[in-house]
Amino acid sequence: MTARQELPVLIPGYGEVRPYDERRRGEAAWRAPKRRGDECGKLLDSIAMAFDACAIRDGATLSFHHHLRNGDAVLNIVLAEAARRGLRGLTLAASSIFPVHAPLVEHLKSGVVRRLFTAYMSGPVADAVTQGVLADPVVMQTHGGRARAIESGELPIDVAFIAAPAADRGGNISGVVGPAACGPLGYAMVDAEHAAQVVAVTDHLAPYPVAPIDIAQDRVDFVVRVDSIGDPAGILSGTTRPTTDPVGLKIAATAAQVIEASGLLGPEFSFQTGAGGVSLAVAAELRSIMRRLKIQGAFASGGVTGYLCDMLDEDLFRAIFDVQCFDLKAVESYRRDPRHLAMSASMYASPASRGAVVDRLDAMILGAAEVDLDFNVNVTTGSTRRILGGSGGHADTADGSQLAIVTTRLQAGGGMKIVDRVGCITTPGSTIDAVVTEAGIAVNPRRADLEKRLREAGLDVCTIEALRAAAGPREAAAPAASDGRIVAVVEYRDGSVIDVVRQSS
Amino acid sequence: MTARQELPVLIPGYGEVRPYDERRRGEAAWRAPKRRGDECGKLLDSIAMAFDACAIRDGATLSFHHHLRNGDAVLNIVLAEAARRGLRGLTLAASSIFPVHAPLVEHLKSGVVRRLFTAYMSGPVADAVTQGVLADPVVMQTHGGRARAIESGELPIDVAFIAAPAADRGGNISGVVGPAACGPLGYAMVDAEHAAQVVAVTDHLAPYPVAPIDIAQDRVDFVVRVDSIGDPAGILSGTTRPTTDPVGLKIAATAAQVIEASGLLGPEFSFQTGAGGVSLAVAAELRSIMRRLKIQGAFASGGVTGYLCDMLDEDLFRAIFDVQCFDLKAVESYRRDPRHLAMSASMYASPASRGAVVDRLDAMILGAAEVDLDFNVNVTTGSTRRILGGSGGHADTADGSQLAIVTTRLQAGGGMKIVDRVGCITTPGSTIDAVVTEAGIAVNPRRADLEKRLREAGLDVCTIEALRAAAGPREAAAPAASDGRIVAVVEYRDGSVIDVVRQSS
Repeated sequence: MTARQELPVLIPGYGEVRPYDERRRGEAAWRAPKRRGDECGKLLDSIAMAFDACAIRDGATLSFHHHLRNGDAVLNIVLAEAARRGLRGLTLAASSIFPVHAPLVEHLKSGVVRRLFTAYMSGPVADAVTQGVLADPVVMQTHGGRARAIESGELPIDVAFIAAPAADRGGNISGVVGPAACGPLGYAMVDAEHAAQVVAVTDHLAPYPVAPIDIAQDRVDFVVRVDSIGDPAGILSGTTRPTTDPVGLKIAATAAQVIEASGLLGPEFSFQTGAGGVSLAVAAELRSIMRRLKIQGAFASGGVTGYLCDMLDEDLFRAIFDVQCFDLKAVESYRRDPRHLAMSASMYASPASRGAVVDRLDAMILGAAEVDLDFNVNVTTGSTRRILGGSGGHADTADGSQLAIVTTRLQAGGGMKIVDRVGCITTPGSTIDAVVTEAGIAVNPRRADLEKRLREAGLDVCTIEALRAAAGPREAAAPAASDGRIVAVVEYRDGSVIDVVRQSS
Repeated sequence: MTARQELPVLIPGYGEVRPYDERRRGEAAWRAPKRRGDECGKLLDSIAMAFDACAIRDGATLSFHHHLRNGDAVLNIVLAEAARRGLRGLTLAASSIFPVHAPLVEHLKSGVVRRLFTAYMSGPVADAVTQGVLADPVVMQTHGGRARAIESGELPIDVAFIAAPAADRGGNISGVVGPAACGPLGYAMVDAEHAAQVVAVTDHLAPYPVAPIDIAQDRVDFVVRVDSIGDPAGILSGTTRPTTDPVGLKIAATAAQVIEASGLLGPEFSFQTGAGGVSLAVAAELRSIMRRLKIQGAFASGGVTGYLCDMLDEDLFRAIFDVQCFDLKAVESYRRDPRHLAMSASMYASPASRGAVVDRLDAMILGAAEVDLDFNVNVTTGSTRRILGGSGGHADTADGSQLAIVTTRLQAGGGMKIVDRVGCITTPGSTIDAVVTEAGIAVNPRRADLEKRLREAGLDVCTIEALRAAAGPREAAAPAASDGRIVAVVEYRDGSVIDVVRQSS
């Protein structure tokens, strides 16, 4: 059947008429093979088939996410296939790179991969990049800057590979089912939404439909079954725990006192902290304070630990915004508590979104490899100028939060942490409000209001210069090799360039 | 601070360097006003302020969704403001229009609204359109076709107004909190994702963040507080119930037998039915059969009733896909059961998505105003050729499902339901597999396989011609006014034109 014969060619006020044509039904816009019989058409048996199905060629941009952290197998198996096929000149947009991704070094050397965009890297890949393995500099983004670049089309992705703890034949993905259950898939959500093609890679094919769904079938083109997407032991620790070290505990207690004195504690209070021992100790101290003051805040956010979930269970917050779980307890909380909310990396931190969660954040606890006299923070390179990390959400949360607190010892690992000038600026000092050490609290001179409150609360406020002096005598820092080749470009969350890393051995 | 002075202007392999500039931080891409103080900047006190904030001008396209059904107040209050401002030539993209939207007739007459896109309309607006109130024809879409048109850019939306049962200052929207709680917001999800600007209209401002979230803050520009977004009594019935009428029950029992005989019942079985009495009676019969056969199917889907939720509670399905709740029991199920999954209109039915749920559907129970000898179905106009409905998901589900069953009496309301030729083709006969009446089952000749199965099961199979004859003597149907002005264009799900409606009084 075709449309009625009497249809006019043109309808005034509507325009040209494209008549319904029975013969073309199901042919035009239908992207997904229709299930007529047993096969849904999305399910593939190997990564090789996914390369064929997506027609991945030299120079393609492939994206990966890091929810499986140092247990991730997906990036490695995908690139092994690319190498097997003799592909060259790929661009990788990987939200983070861990030591487990060591095989990538070979692909950088051989030219399989030519460019790399990431928000964090550590281990052999970071070392190789520092030593100049790539001709083109790596682009070090922030988590929010990565989302912004993908959404804006600045960083177009040809194929997003999603490590899926569970998936079904229709392409629905769940983060809380299967042996590698890791919680919300916040970074992958952005890739799934914007990549030209999306491949779910899973070791747990669930009956259709998998539930709950973290990334839905209308975002996913293909589902590939593999033996393992990763080593659960490397993905998450069982439980993350606060530090028990006395110096760390003192710093944490001081940081919590800074929050209390800041005046931010109240029914709209929000809080983010990392998974490190001192960061968790701050949460533990804050928990005591909130209990004592009988305060329920608005939300905790970020990469989420079980410790924050305990605080939710205790009703110390109304909700949690979770872009990625750091431990199994957090995964379990996300599974059972409807107040534990998933968020995409864009909702978390994109400066171009209609309101990111970081931009509503009150208190943020940050780490540092180095802090300098301008309060600039380096979490990208170490004192030897080798790449050992990257912003992740550091620069995003520092900018968005009302109270960005860096907690650090004066020295660690034999090196000074408070320096004249950081080796690399990850996060500009203008977005840091206070630096808390065992020797006192330095408040950014821009925050005279905060300094006044801390002094009134009897806290030990000093200048950053005093902390610098307490950290130790000036020593010849590894000279910034200002004439070396640029091996990494450090982008701020808005895509501007805030610093570069130069080649070193 | 600006970026380091030593930054080169151009970095080989990276390109031109846009240096970080402290003075421009927070100015560039940041769309949402940042919360520095108490105000988040999204919250507005009136619809008038939203018109100003969005700079809505003559000729703008505004979108609305119909989860509040015949209780919706939002479309009316928004258009009253448009009229008050003297705006002219607006285009409305409303997923459905109900009798409660009667005030829209005045705006069509006065020229405030010039064009209308919708998937369903009934009541005074439908009457006025039939009578020719608009110069330009209304575009009658399917639910999936509407999603496709919005996603593809064919129907660009300037401002989406979202009736939000609850919202917070940050723009997060929940469908299950507040006095007008109505469940998932599947139709609105597409609008929120693609409209240039998004306004949440709510009568229940929740503390930040509202949880659970159905549409997230990164999709929402403004939140407007109003006294009421609708009358709960018109939004949802307390409970929807199967028919108790003997003829309806017989038809329902036969339809369930058709499903059983089709061979589709099994662990991958999926099912959708509407909220009408006969449709629910089919579900009741099917429930008995599934219990008897001890079958757990894959999913039920669609606009969802409490009856399907009872079947989920009984583990007769693994999950529910829900684009819109039809009753309060369904809302409650969505609130408490993680297997009760929300889906967007695109995931539900868009033919251009990467796999819509309707395209994985086994059995679909459909209604009809008329069915003809080619199995074409009309749910757009009545026997008097006046518009009284529209496809909604009718054409989408008929096309996608493996077994599309129309249940209908031979006659209703004094008119014949089986006719020589339908007055308007909503759904092409090639996508209908069987017509079940009290006088027997007509199987589409394309489905000889199905007819064989039904006969083997001892079911009462006959021809569509026999049903036509049983329906009553031929009578002079209201002549199709083939020379009248076209008042509505009926689009198929792929955007082609399958029929038109001409002016009548």
